[in-house]
Amino acid sequence: MNDRAPSPIEEPGVPPRVGRVRDASVNLAHGSGGRAMRDLIEDVFVPAFDNPTLAALEDQAVFGLADLAAHGDRLAFTTDSYVVDPLFFPGGDIGTLAVSGTVNDLAVCGATPLYLSCAVVIEEGLAVDLLRRVAASMQRIAREAGVAIVTGDTKVVERGCADKLFINTAGIGVVRSGVAIAARNARAGDVVIVNGYLGDHGAAILVARQQLALEADIESDCGPLNGLIAAMLDACPRIHCLRDATRGGVATVLNEFAQSSNVTIRLREAALPLREQVQGACEILGLDPLYLANEGKLVAVVPADAAERVLAVMRAHPAGREAAAIGTVEPGDAGGLVVMQTVFGGERIVDMLVGEQLPRIC
Amino acid sequence: MNDRAPSPIEEPGVPPRVGRVRDASVNLAHGSGGRAMRDLIEDVFVPAFDNPTLAALEDQAVFGLADLAAHGDRLAFTTDSYVVDPLFFPGGDIGTLAVSGTVNDLAVCGATPLYLSCAVVIEEGLAVDLLRRVAASMQRIAREAGVAIVTGDTKVVERGCADKLFINTAGIGVVRSGVAIAARNARAGDVVIVNGYLGDHGAAILVARQQLALEADIESDCGPLNGLIAAMLDACPRIHCLRDATRGGVATVLNEFAQSSNVTIRLREAALPLREQVQGACEILGLDPLYLANEGKLVAVVPADAAERVLAVMRAHPAGREAAAIGTVEPGDAGGLVVMQTVFGGERIVDMLVGEQLPRIC
Repeated sequence: MNDRAPSPIEEPGVPPRVGRVRDASVNLAHGSGGRAMRDLIEDVFVPAFDNPTLAALEDQAVFGLADLAAHGDRLAFTTDSYVVDPLFFPGGDIGTLAVSGTVNDLAVCGATPLYLSCAVVIEEGLAVDLLRRVAASMQRIAREAGVAIVTGDTKVVERGCADKLFINTAGIGVVRSGVAIAARNARAGDVVIVNGYLGDHGAAILVARQQLALEADIESDCGPLNGLIAAMLDACPRIHCLRDATRGGVATVLNEFAQSSNVTIRLREAALPLREQVQGACEILGLDPLYLANEGKLVAVVPADAAERVLAVMRAHPAGREAAAIGTVEPGDAGGLVVMQTVFGGERIVDMLVGEQLPRIC
Repeated sequence: MNDRAPSPIEEPGVPPRVGRVRDASVNLAHGSGGRAMRDLIEDVFVPAFDNPTLAALEDQAVFGLADLAAHGDRLAFTTDSYVVDPLFFPGGDIGTLAVSGTVNDLAVCGATPLYLSCAVVIEEGLAVDLLRRVAASMQRIAREAGVAIVTGDTKVVERGCADKLFINTAGIGVVRSGVAIAARNARAGDVVIVNGYLGDHGAAILVARQQLALEADIESDCGPLNGLIAAMLDACPRIHCLRDATRGGVATVLNEFAQSSNVTIRLREAALPLREQVQGACEILGLDPLYLANEGKLVAVVPADAAERVLAVMRAHPAGREAAAIGTVEPGDAGGLVVMQTVFGGERIVDMLVGEQLPRIC
């Protein structure tokens, strides 16, 4: 089961620290359910996530339903596992990703994200200080997004049975009353909007894996979108469709909208917000930026009469400065279609991602 | 990163099947976020879990708060990852474990478990039919427990970067009004109860790993406890402490109760319900059954005047036939203590699990 060389798993430049856990690296006892696991949790996660619900170390977090109802009338529930490789990359790490991604999955249905869980699967030998750094990243984004990490789980597997660290975050939030966002709600005449440059996360991972030698810095766009989305819903409670464009990129989200709504979505290539570095990298590597993963980008479909208003509030928000209308919704056949008018005046079909572009992007 | 021999990951005796997914084994494209991933989800998980919320394939599940309030006044939220090795063992598999474990974490706080998430991390090369079997196991237990698996996530990592399959389930439920179960609530005079034979799961995993050659069959006790707990709360809404005794066993749960409540818990060794095979295995291997993992066993601390009533309803329930009072709560010092009167008339301290007894037990 385990043929890998038993070298220590460390990131360079992390100074040793002394806490309740005396071991420098995680061993199987830290996943035992006994004292060593409790020490690891009380040393690393409880101080980082810093809230009384988690600190009680019950096996579940409990909240009053009446307090939840203050935020709206429906509960939203979501989960994502994060297996990104490498764990640290320009603009973020697996921790920032694990909180941003789940916050965004809640926010795109119109929910106020409130509580997250954090379940880690750790490969034996992982440096405890690496875990501390990841936990600190998680808490930084959680604070920015206004959520609390209230419950968790710790498992440790033998060396060679996982790749360093996997994190699952599930999340709950409350959907504001009156909002009805769904992939099936796109209507002919609607406008398709994104909140900024596409493909930054995918390109940043390529750079971090040294599969791409570039002079220019590209940073992941990894970050929470709930503040931006709240402003958009204040401006237009009738947003029809909203999703974050992670794995599969903008092309996959648009195909899901077109299929669910039985419409044709027409994009204008010239309108796509793309950084020069990302566009250049895509040309060199033969990648299509429409399929590159984002971790802080959303695709919204809004009624035409609200588009300018929504764009204005987006551009006034730090997470939406480069927001752009990239296309329109037209009547379509069952099954839906996404087409793009190219900069050369032609037209091409934009399909869902087929095969895989980059494994372990998130 | 990957030095393991690329042999196919199959379980013997699984006939090939033809579905929407034409591949016999999972590849990296199934974790891409694109069409292959959608095909896998629509082929394996959507039909198995069979509910309209999941089938909508939105990135989150949404429920009316008013419907939740029909079950009680507080929301409970929990998460656990499952990394058990092997995936299939006598009495269960990773799927039965993943649903039972999270259902039980909700039930032990007095919650009615309602909705679960399912996030899988799959090693490239896993047989798709194995995944179908695990999904079927999950749904079988979900139906038994009365919960729906409503949202999920699929990640695939390269061969050698995970060990076949890890599953995370998060769960939400609603705590019945008036119930106040907590580890800090044990009081002098209370009675300590378990619902049956201890250590079956840990012993079954030992057998499945062939670390133990036994004539006698030992099956995991893996199963949902919410029905049993509902009956116990009907009989005694004032249950003081309740936990399922998984990793770390009964000894670790009792230490958590004693520490949180600052009491001494006195066990009677003669009263511990132990199967002859499990006791024999423990003697041979030098293991203590109090530390063996269970996956269908709970430890309850109840007021003395309710103990007989609670034991009676437990023994009338299929999951509690061998329920037994195993000890009592006495006044104690800060920090708490668990002691056991041995069958030889002596007394020994029962500490928390130190080190690890069996890695990847769940």
